[in-house]
Amino acid sequence: MSAGGGGEFGLIARHFTRPARSPRVVLGVGDDCAIVQPDPGQQLAISSDMLVEGRHFLPTVPPERLGHKALAVNLSDLAACGAEPLACTLALALPRVDDDFLAGLARGLWALAEAHGIDLVGGDTTAGPLNICITVFGQVPPGQALLRSGARPGDELWVSGTLGDARLALEAFRGQLPMAALAADFDRLRLAMEMPQPRVALGLALRGLASSAIDLSDGLAGDLAHVLRRSGVGATVDVDALPRSALLAAQPLALQHQCLLSGGDDYELLFTVAPGRHAEVHDAARLAGVPVSCCGRIETTPGLRVVDRHGQPVVGDWRGFDHFGA
Amino acid sequence: MSAGGGGEFGLIARHFTRPARSPRVVLGVGDDCAIVQPDPGQQLAISSDMLVEGRHFLPTVPPERLGHKALAVNLSDLAACGAEPLACTLALALPRVDDDFLAGLARGLWALAEAHGIDLVGGDTTAGPLNICITVFGQVPPGQALLRSGARPGDELWVSGTLGDARLALEAFRGQLPMAALAADFDRLRLAMEMPQPRVALGLALRGLASSAIDLSDGLAGDLAHVLRRSGVGATVDVDALPRSALLAAQPLALQHQCLLSGGDDYELLFTVAPGRHAEVHDAARLAGVPVSCCGRIETTPGLRVVDRHGQPVVGDWRGFDHFGA
Repeated sequence: MSAGGGGEFGLIARHFTRPARSPRVVLGVGDDCAIVQPDPGQQLAISSDMLVEGRHFLPTVPPERLGHKALAVNLSDLAACGAEPLACTLALALPRVDDDFLAGLARGLWALAEAHGIDLVGGDTTAGPLNICITVFGQVPPGQALLRSGARPGDELWVSGTLGDARLALEAFRGQLPMAALAADFDRLRLAMEMPQPRVALGLALRGLASSAIDLSDGLAGDLAHVLRRSGVGATVDVDALPRSALLAAQPLALQHQCLLSGGDDYELLFTVAPGRHAEVHDAARLAGVPVSCCGRIETTPGLRVVDRHGQPVVGDWRGFDHFGA
Repeated sequence: MSAGGGGEFGLIARHFTRPARSPRVVLGVGDDCAIVQPDPGQQLAISSDMLVEGRHFLPTVPPERLGHKALAVNLSDLAACGAEPLACTLALALPRVDDDFLAGLARGLWALAEAHGIDLVGGDTTAGPLNICITVFGQVPPGQALLRSGARPGDELWVSGTLGDARLALEAFRGQLPMAALAADFDRLRLAMEMPQPRVALGLALRGLASSAIDLSDGLAGDLAHVLRRSGVGATVDVDALPRSALLAAQPLALQHQCLLSGGDDYELLFTVAPGRHAEVHDAARLAGVPVSCCGRIETTPGLRVVDRHGQPVVGDWRGFDHFGA
């Protein structure tokens, strides 16, 4: 862990150095390692995501939103495990020292970190093509982590929030949508893409209730495929039951399906629950302040089947979203 | 945590996915998070380093050595804290999928990981300019971490191994040294730069003995300055007592001093110990299989003073090494 060999890159560290707030952080930024003390008996959940310009964010993203998103996509992984966030590290490569950019990036990251009560405990800064790598640490009681491998035939499939707006925003940025038709809604769409809200509270509330969970980063079809493969099961999804904004619902059906099933960047939770537990799931969702929708069922037959509300097959190529490089 | 949205970048993950060996790794690569179980009562030591081509390694480095070095610089941070390595994550941005490069990178990383009994538990791969970000996790009993802030006036200053060969290799690569004069020694020099050995065993052996420690990544003068600042002390270093290879000792004195004091990339440990404990320090070093040298003393007067064996001041600009961007 270093500040990139001193010089002006050492200054970068100042934007990202604050005294640790959590009593679990024994030692924060400034030594060779950070020292963190998880609660007794807890297991450690760890995830790491690297964000690259042009693939995970557009050059037009305001720095503050970029700081938010870089941490949000990592917290979303903790949420999908039902882990309680503890701390994070940030490694940052920058082509040049741009104080306004750094101040914005730091502001966005700190706001989300504080909202989740976590500290930035260390990291690295260096010169290089823009790259943001965050690693997050959470804790979870032994045996209570939500895994991708727990889905069982008969389980119902649920999803949080609404899907597809982030992809719709990307289509708008790409000029594939008439911006005039979007008007004031564009700002809201853009928020969906640039300021995803990690569903940490929902993940915690689903401990002991969900049989499996994953966060939606690459599109429902692709991410669900991970769950099906690791659980050794198949699924049928009712595309008409997938939750969407009024704006997406007003788009042509083919575009709706593309955004809902292979949209990417949703950062909602997809999870499975044994049948007959709707009241408990809705209680958990209410506790977390996030709407949830039942949208399908886990089956013994391998593979993913997409149908409409009448049970008729919906045909399409729902490969996982390959971010902006697709 | 993802495999970069599938496609051929998903294949990358195969090089870096092996079943976890340590019983402390409850869940390795393949879910939203890794789950790690530190030993009861232990604190967690965390460090993260990002390596960028042209700054932290030359394009000429063999991929296997790059894989070694990317992990080694992180393990070196754990060593400097006296922490026992547990696991690591790897986030990797690659301009293109080059199977030979990836196989080499993975081979070097796995060899060092296995030598230290740690697992690669997760990470991320994406398309982008070459960037390697590793985060390591270790454990240390409460209160036993070696910190930069513990040096006290009267303590003696120690360093492990030999210093300066990595910098000498860089000078050779830059054409600043007559290669003919180096002959067969060049391969050994190059090893010092490309295959640093993290002093993990020494860090563990120094628990309860060293009052402070840091690993030498940016050059002794710059790294010692961190210890002095955080400990609120000063130091005098005897440059003639700094350990060096026969090859470095054969170079002009000014070059020797530059390589020893602001060389960078040494990845040896610099540590302080109360006076009169030479036998214990040498016992610890023997246990760890690394030579150590006493090379100075901590003092009340702030700042760093460099002297020769006769106590005469040695003048120079010993700023920290700014890697290859200096």
